[in-house]
Amino acid sequence: MRMADLIVKKRNGQELSREEIHFIIDGVVHEKIPDYQTSAFLMAVYFQGMNDREITDLTLEMANSGDQFNLSGVDGICVDKHSTGGVGDKTTLIVGPMCAACGVKIAKMSGRGLGFTGGTIDKLESIQGVKTSIPYEQFIRQLNEIGMVISSQTANLAPADKKLYALRDVTGTVESIPLIASSIMSKKLASGADAIVLDVKTGSGALIHNFDDSVKLAEEMVAIGKNAGRKVRAVITDMDNPLGMAIGNALEVKEAVEVLSGRGPADLKEVCMELAVQMLHLSNESLSEEECRRQLSQSLANGSALRLFKRVLKAQGAKENAIESLQISDMIVEVEARESGYVSSFRTDEIGRACSLLGSGRTNKEDTIDQTVGIVLNKKQGDYVKAGDILARFYVSEKSDVAQAESIFQNAVQISKTIPERKKLIYKIL
Amino acid sequence: MRMADLIVKKRNGQELSREEIHFIIDGVVHEKIPDYQTSAFLMAVYFQGMNDREITDLTLEMANSGDQFNLSGVDGICVDKHSTGGVGDKTTLIVGPMCAACGVKIAKMSGRGLGFTGGTIDKLESIQGVKTSIPYEQFIRQLNEIGMVISSQTANLAPADKKLYALRDVTGTVESIPLIASSIMSKKLASGADAIVLDVKTGSGALIHNFDDSVKLAEEMVAIGKNAGRKVRAVITDMDNPLGMAIGNALEVKEAVEVLSGRGPADLKEVCMELAVQMLHLSNESLSEEECRRQLSQSLANGSALRLFKRVLKAQGAKENAIESLQISDMIVEVEARESGYVSSFRTDEIGRACSLLGSGRTNKEDTIDQTVGIVLNKKQGDYVKAGDILARFYVSEKSDVAQAESIFQNAVQISKTIPERKKLIYKIL
Repeated sequence: MRMADLIVKKRNGQELSREEIHFIIDGVVHEKIPDYQTSAFLMAVYFQGMNDREITDLTLEMANSGDQFNLSGVDGICVDKHSTGGVGDKTTLIVGPMCAACGVKIAKMSGRGLGFTGGTIDKLESIQGVKTSIPYEQFIRQLNEIGMVISSQTANLAPADKKLYALRDVTGTVESIPLIASSIMSKKLASGADAIVLDVKTGSGALIHNFDDSVKLAEEMVAIGKNAGRKVRAVITDMDNPLGMAIGNALEVKEAVEVLSGRGPADLKEVCMELAVQMLHLSNESLSEEECRRQLSQSLANGSALRLFKRVLKAQGAKENAIESLQISDMIVEVEARESGYVSSFRTDEIGRACSLLGSGRTNKEDTIDQTVGIVLNKKQGDYVKAGDILARFYVSEKSDVAQAESIFQNAVQISKTIPERKKLIYKIL
Repeated sequence: MRMADLIVKKRNGQELSREEIHFIIDGVVHEKIPDYQTSAFLMAVYFQGMNDREITDLTLEMANSGDQFNLSGVDGICVDKHSTGGVGDKTTLIVGPMCAACGVKIAKMSGRGLGFTGGTIDKLESIQGVKTSIPYEQFIRQLNEIGMVISSQTANLAPADKKLYALRDVTGTVESIPLIASSIMSKKLASGADAIVLDVKTGSGALIHNFDDSVKLAEEMVAIGKNAGRKVRAVITDMDNPLGMAIGNALEVKEAVEVLSGRGPADLKEVCMELAVQMLHLSNESLSEEECRRQLSQSLANGSALRLFKRVLKAQGAKENAIESLQISDMIVEVEARESGYVSSFRTDEIGRACSLLGSGRTNKEDTIDQTVGIVLNKKQGDYVKAGDILARFYVSEKSDVAQAESIFQNAVQISKTIPERKKLIYKIL
């Protein structure tokens, strides 16, 4: 078998066999195939796509390219949750404790990731003392004793994905549904959970802006998971607006704690409840969805979700009262509306970019994140504002590029004279 | 400017500016852009194409990436000729002397090339003593004194093309019209000729099988040449059949000498005459095409073309009587027709492959060519054969894989009961 022939085959739109896909992934991981052939292949996949069978084989090969995380020592159903990412997305910190308080085992391995704000791991690390590199024995013990663990990805999971992603990032082949689906699902399969709930974001702040493509991605990932013998559900949720009001690591943790305390923004609560219902239901399909909803609401009302979250943090090293004493900048810049009218839409990716300029995100892997900065919105889509009203508060540092961030933010907020249509939050469950 | 952004731009079907194309070619030549980005870019070009302006800019950047061969010391109009390649194509050895005998300066820089048989340089080297690495001073002097020189490409012409071609060859991006056109024309422009005649082959033995694509390639190359201020003409000729009867290096030289002596196969003579007419006419547009044809016919009839060829060979080091004593294998295998009927078609690329298995070609740059082996057809498309008639004679060596070559050859010849339509030889002149 020659890689050059396989590139031509995919370029010509033909289906690759399981053996051919094995040859490619094995060659990539063991560096038998040079990067220049791999990148040409990825571009051919970008244009020609792959069918369900090819994508499943690709994902399984990637999942099998490294270690398989073994969760067989956990007593109960392990549920994993993945979000395709967006602006203000702190749902893991909320739905994890809610579900764990209802008896689901939440085994969450997260990344740091590039982007406007850090990943879940970065958010957690804004809590004083919290460790995210959890040894295997503790991981299993904590799951059995408390029911939830959030760990950075330390095992050698899906190394093929690491290599392919690094290439895709610099060769214009990120935005390909088969490649996104196999990248996400290979890590999820290798992470060992019994069931997986996928939060597929759609809209201007999501990786995939277009609704139809978001549905395709969700369908693809559900198909892969089922073909691999896992329980999988996907929820397509809105990312045309930032989720909740807070963007930035410590600010998002604070907002997550608000929701766990029974307060917090309505949109964030609604999305979290839907995700949690799917996770709990997937762990125990004998429960009705209404019963799941009732139990989860109770976990918020009676404080059990918040208590569980605090136990998780303590087990992972948090200092006493760490979440009551989150470090948030006290340098605040108020951003005012320039005109009166309704907030008709956000360019949510640009809101994220403004936040990143304050210091909340990374452009390169080596960048350090400022956990204390961020943006808290004061108005959301559909709200009426008068010129001079506060649109948002920027929590900044000496290093923040405030002027540039404010200019981008202002341009990203559209104000109109007519009442805008409210966006749906939950588009579809697959 | 970032290469990753330019890949995405082309991937999305947008037009690249002159500055962006300069950035890419400069980066490729000076190794500032890694191969994995270049190959992803080439695959994006394969799918999205380029417009005339982009292709011209790409070609000029490639032509300017190395030395420019200076022909200003030559007295007269220098005409170059290029064939996109095929099976049995020995036209350069015929049209060069014909045109030079009529006063055109033939400055030919040729490659060795991979393929079923060698390039023009390999064919020439089957003549005892002939040298093809001609120093610059001799190159110019020989052009002025004799009117023709054939040299291997020694100067650092279009190094960008060398790098891109090496990558294309292993990343499934050879068959792209913008990339083929810019590759050919960058070398032609850097070679310095005033006028260029392009022999664009079409059919089963050509790089491009499809007629419409052959026309597109021809149009593209003519447009590039004109945009670059050169006189260019393209002749689209048939490669659904091998050209002439002989395939293999020394055998092809022998057949070329036959044509220069006023004999030889009709198809080869017709194609050579048309190419030579275009070359002579391009060098002196005040002549009518009929007058060109008359002068060229005379160069064959009065022996001046053959004499000129011999002078070229002698100037380049050929031994006395070298072309009368060509080394051709005397181990001959006769291949017989298995059934009676009309030779309705050849799969010409397969005929080439059969010849290659006898030892006439290269698969890798390092392979050595056996100049003495090859195939001489005894029947051509349209001929009637009886079972047992000789279809072809294989000139073989100890190392030839005769059984495999014969099997491929037999499968490549289609025999039918009905009289087949004769193929055109000259399809179009642009």
